[in-house]
Amino acid sequence: MMSTIVTLTSDYGTRDAFAASMKGVIYKVNPLAQIVDITHEINPQDVWEAAYTLNIACNFYPNGTVHLAVVDPGVGSGRRPIIVVTENYYFVGPDNGIFTLIYQSAERIMVHHITAAHYFLPNPGPTFHGRDIFAPVAGALAKGIPAGNFGDEITDFIKLTVPVPKTAQNTIEGHVVHIDRFGNLITNIAYKLIQALLPESGEPGDIQISVAGKDIKGLKKYYAEATPGEQGAIFNSSGTLEIFMFKQNARTALSAKRGDAVRLTILPR
Amino acid sequence: MMSTIVTLTSDYGTRDAFAASMKGVIYKVNPLAQIVDITHEINPQDVWEAAYTLNIACNFYPNGTVHLAVVDPGVGSGRRPIIVVTENYYFVGPDNGIFTLIYQSAERIMVHHITAAHYFLPNPGPTFHGRDIFAPVAGALAKGIPAGNFGDEITDFIKLTVPVPKTAQNTIEGHVVHIDRFGNLITNIAYKLIQALLPESGEPGDIQISVAGKDIKGLKKYYAEATPGEQGAIFNSSGTLEIFMFKQNARTALSAKRGDAVRLTILPR
Amino acid sequence: MMSTIVTLTSDYGTRDAFAASMKGVIYKVNPLAQIVDITHEINPQDVWEAAYTLNIACNFYPNGTVHLAVVDPGVGSGRRPIIVVTENYYFVGPDNGIFTLIYQSAERIMVHHITAAHYFLPNPGPTFHGRDIFAPVAGALAKGIPAGNFGDEITDFIKLTVPVPKTAQNTIEGHVVHIDRFGNLITNIAYKLIQALLPESGEPGDIQISVAGKDIKGLKKYYAEATPGEQGAIFNSSGTLEIFMFKQNARTALSAKRGDAVRLTILPR
Repeated sequence: MMSTIVTLTSDYGTRDAFAASMKGVIYKVNPLAQIVDITHEINPQDVWEAAYTLNIACNFYPNGTVHLAVVDPGVGSGRRPIIVVTENYYFVGPDNGIFTLIYQSAERIMVHHITAAHYFLPNPGPTFHGRDIFAPVAGALAKGIPAGNFGDEITDFIKLTVPVPKTAQNTIEGHVVHIDRFGNLITNIAYKLIQALLPESGEPGDIQISVAGKDIKGLKKYYAEATPGEQGAIFNSSGTLEIFMFKQNARTALSAKRGDAVRLTILPR
Repeated sequence: MMSTIVTLTSDYGTRDAFAASMKGVIYKVNPLAQIVDITHEINPQDVWEAAYTLNIACNFYPNGTVHLAVVDPGVGSGRRPIIVVTENYYFVGPDNGIFTLIYQSAERIMVHHITAAHYFLPNPGPTFHGRDIFAPVAGALAKGIPAGNFGDEITDFIKLTVPVPKTAQNTIEGHVVHIDRFGNLITNIAYKLIQALLPESGEPGDIQISVAGKDIKGLKKYYAEATPGEQGAIFNSSGTLEIFMFKQNARTALSAKRGDAVRLTILPR
Repeated sequence: MMSTIVTLTSDYGTRDAFAASMKGVIYKVNPLAQIVDITHEINPQDVWEAAYTLNIACNFYPNGTVHLAVVDPGVGSGRRPIIVVTENYYFVGPDNGIFTLIYQSAERIMVHHITAAHYFLPNPGPTFHGRDIFAPVAGALAKGIPAGNFGDEITDFIKLTVPVPKTAQNTIEGHVVHIDRFGNLITNIAYKLIQALLPESGEPGDIQISVAGKDIKGLKKYYAEATPGEQGAIFNSSGTLEIFMFKQNARTALSAKRGDAVRLTILPR
């Protein structure tokens, strides 16, 4: 697998020189790289948000793409720099759980501890491995240098604890795991979970979703099925349950936040 | 006409995976695409703002550029996905009026209803046509696939109602149609409108602009003709009347908002 | 030296059509350009912030890169458009001091007053030289057109007054010169300044940093040496003293702002 695309996911923002410095380093190592921002607007130090956002976007990229992700409060400490190789992609970043969802979804993974310092910028400092280590390594990977050249395989890499929905006979209890720009509340309740609860007959019966003190009945198929300002629930483009408010902001209206409990109940007919 | 450039205009923001997912899809379809963001910071669901911003930027691009624009509250409903072909460009997006200003300014247009599902992502959902339909179609257009391959021509496409300034003997009444990052108030009063009112002798005489309860006399040629904090009026880089406040923010100072009335009066000498 | 990379630094933001219009113009002049954003989020009219950010990022780019920078309150007035040629890069922008730090750090510089109007967009206006003058000139430079073709050399170019730290026997008095996205306070106290004060024996003794009414003792080597919420001082990835608050925002906690005095004292052992 081979691509010249390097994607970037970070909490560096776009006001400062951080992201742009990484890009310069990548181009110096690999003038043919095609650099694409996934986002630099991850909340500062929010490793989960980076893990979540990267996992949603990464699979739409061509095979061989190098995904660099760096939200890295432990930079300069003992935490290891790593490369994760899956059946489709390379991932480069700190070993702090940022690739947890990749570990869960990939068919096979191999993780390398990056130690080959001759690939780094000269005299890498202890505060900006995005620029000094991850960028030159990502640029080199996108030139086709084998992952094994950067360091030995490890198996004790770090995973975040990911909340798993609890399913009972007629209910699923999950959580809000992300809130998007529109104020939509994204949950960890996947479509297949609810399918398993449904009667053989097929179509969902009456479903009630409870979140942030609000009960919502039924599922919409698309946003505009709701009237402006009406709250609705939908299975979104990632296949998980989402609470929205048509043409308005559900987060604001419901004072919802990430981590809020979400209960889905299949009502008796 | 042929270019490998695909521009993106949306309200997806840059915090979430939306824009990055579209880019991955485009690169998968067309590895040679040059993707350029016009903006993803359109106010959520603000079709007019997208129409305005795209129209200002698009004509500076090479012939053959594919402009993808998606602000799409009606996604998944009956609203149609379309391709607009002009003498210079391709436009891809929802048929909700987002291309209204293109229809007005292009010399000739042909609009196709996108129906050729084999160009879409497999199993496109009802919530994210930017990724599932518009991105792969834009990538394919930038490979040179003819617009006619994606669906039949239609003529009943949607246009937004665009406010038109009213001209009387010595006055023009227009509106604030956009407020930019600097807080400048951009109006729909074009330079040619005021030229038509001026006496044969040429140069504008005393002109007064009234907006948000404030009267401004005369026109500046460049911003720094005003003193810091002084309000001024100018014909801007798009050839329309703009109210600014030198080194400060006119929107804040005047509590102005989009839609505010603007009256230009040619004062007697 | 030759590269096809053109970087952009501006206060245009990413909501409006400004930056995207520049990019279109560059691609029209030079379809092979690789355009990279350093940032468009410079505070409006803040020439210093642009000078600072560009200077941090620019040196990580390949030789021959064209760095276009435009924060330009004097656009359309007498201020000159210029090209700065250093041993490694080209810089294009207004002669308002935006390249001050380049003048200080480059080994050699040659500055050209851009006057060759046939490289400009037709009929350049007085409000948007980023699009009408700097973009087409940058695109042409990235095609290999010699800097001398755009205008004659000048030597009376503008420099900003840059605050210089004052060093006494055991103290250095500097300033906060930038505050980054994380709320870290970046000072102009370079590592080499403090090295000069240290005894021959080597390692810094006890050091105290005073800023915004707060005293911080000692230096950290990496951020995670501090406990969450603890304030610390560190030499950062640009080699200057930085005050941070681990996993929190030092700017907010200390009510600090750019320009605040910073005093470093080497305490007696």
